[in-house]
Amino acid sequence: MRLLALLLLPLAACASVSSSSLFGGADPLPSWNDGDLKSAIIDFVDGATDPESVHFVPAEERIAVFDNDGTLICEKPLYSQLAFMVDRAREYVADDPSLREQEPYRSLIDGTLGKSKDLEPFIKLAIETHTGMLDEEFVAIAEQWLATARHPQFERPYTELVFAPMVELVAYLQASDFQVWICTGGGLDFVRCYAKEVYGIAPENVIGTAGQKAYREVDGRGEFIRLRELVQPINDGPAKPVLIDRYIGRTPILAVGNSDGDLQMLEYVAQRHAATLTLLLHHDDAEREFDYDTGTERALSAAADGEIEVISISRDFATVFAPAR
Amino acid sequence: MRLLALLLLPLAACASVSSSSLFGGADPLPSWNDGDLKSAIIDFVDGATDPESVHFVPAEERIAVFDNDGTLICEKPLYSQLAFMVDRAREYVADDPSLREQEPYRSLIDGTLGKSKDLEPFIKLAIETHTGMLDEEFVAIAEQWLATARHPQFERPYTELVFAPMVELVAYLQASDFQVWICTGGGLDFVRCYAKEVYGIAPENVIGTAGQKAYREVDGRGEFIRLRELVQPINDGPAKPVLIDRYIGRTPILAVGNSDGDLQMLEYVAQRHAATLTLLLHHDDAEREFDYDTGTERALSAAADGEIEVISISRDFATVFAPAR
Repeated sequence: MRLLALLLLPLAACASVSSSSLFGGADPLPSWNDGDLKSAIIDFVDGATDPESVHFVPAEERIAVFDNDGTLICEKPLYSQLAFMVDRAREYVADDPSLREQEPYRSLIDGTLGKSKDLEPFIKLAIETHTGMLDEEFVAIAEQWLATARHPQFERPYTELVFAPMVELVAYLQASDFQVWICTGGGLDFVRCYAKEVYGIAPENVIGTAGQKAYREVDGRGEFIRLRELVQPINDGPAKPVLIDRYIGRTPILAVGNSDGDLQMLEYVAQRHAATLTLLLHHDDAEREFDYDTGTERALSAAADGEIEVISISRDFATVFAPAR
Repeated sequence: MRLLALLLLPLAACASVSSSSLFGGADPLPSWNDGDLKSAIIDFVDGATDPESVHFVPAEERIAVFDNDGTLICEKPLYSQLAFMVDRAREYVADDPSLREQEPYRSLIDGTLGKSKDLEPFIKLAIETHTGMLDEEFVAIAEQWLATARHPQFERPYTELVFAPMVELVAYLQASDFQVWICTGGGLDFVRCYAKEVYGIAPENVIGTAGQKAYREVDGRGEFIRLRELVQPINDGPAKPVLIDRYIGRTPILAVGNSDGDLQMLEYVAQRHAATLTLLLHHDDAEREFDYDTGTERALSAAADGEIEVISISRDFATVFAPAR
């Protein structure tokens, strides 16, 4: 198969060309270190795109799903969207100090919010900071924050702290006629604010936790009001296959995640009958990013049992973050 | 612009070619009668695809949404999915006659179900016939019905009673690099059973009323259990823009509907700032299909006020139904 990559066929005539040859024989993943994992990815894409291969997959079934926080973008010390919510909530409290006595603000201020595994305060905080306005107002607020907020440790915009090898993988898959989707527990509209610019992933290819909205027309102009209610289910754990089914309606052949919340998505893809590739990003590089297993124990254990391949940041990433824009 | 259509440029070099030239100057809509409406459609597509035109729209924003029942497929005397539900319910009653005394079966049998405008009995019937089994079981049941059921008047499979000019329009738009989506009040999974084969519309481009599901793994194999609860909202009326926003995340430039349930979708698209085309299919051909305005009064009135163009079956359709497969 690699021999094919040496043939520089003109694109228009290359119905049976392997994926690598799209890159003219050049390395399609230069931000990844050479090794078994990188070879496995390239072999998988070559097989899926080569009609002569037993692993060939028609283009319309070449669907890849990526988790977002911790998979495409740094998630420590906080998910970027949680940092957004905390900053928003602090503004609300500054405007109205009486909020200090109310949840979820009280837990936020006394620092207990982040220490519990209870999702409820986070959902409350998400609803407080994401609803009660029009869509266009929310988008303006989120875009302003994304443009100005800085990561506390790396002192760069959050959307620059995306993993260069992952962005490269997205582009490689797209060039190989994969549909690349995000499947995130994060907020649909928040992630859509930057997914196209930062990852090259269009709004219609983002699956996320969504809020209910009402549509109304005012003076002949339509607008969406963001309601204080979530579309069920929240897109995490066993809900990820459910929303992949709802939005896509067929099983992806490639999935990438980084936490236990991605485990069912990875297993759902791994148990598909045809050849699949499932990848788990392991944060094991304290020097260049972070080193943690918390919240990933079950997924790492499933990977050790086979089927899921582990991407090690320290071993597999030649560079970690994208260059400054 | 039409002159361009005469130039048979090789596809690879035709960055500035008009949509019609994709068809080598041939009529892209032979099932439509020549006239103002057909010209308006072709002019719109030519403008959207011609980079020299002031109406040019980049390919990624060329999004078209079609209602299903009554727009792509005959909806009289019953929506095909309602005919499916009725047939299923009759089987249930045959298996368990005690159901005759329970709703929604009682109303179904005494014929009152179809006479009320109350949606509740229909939703109950939908839940009874679409849930409580696995996805794969439901798909097998639906596909079996679609393959064997016959329309009471035309005596053909329901999926042959699709409008040939509409299927042609879908293909014309797709060939012009439009993403074509279905946006239906009907059931997501039911419509997905035939959308690809009949319309050439992929599962991920179907927006419909969906049921909640649970994902579980049994012996290492994932499966979806269909739950007795709908994902909110039901995709009709003002919910159509809401679900277009949720699934697509940007405003289409073309919308086609046929009833008051499509009105907000049409208005949502019509009020977009850039050039748009919104079409309302009017069933006015008792000889070849049906002639009815009921349930379309407000949409017809809005069309009379401008912005929405009426497609008249009797005037604009050279042929009505697709040939037998």
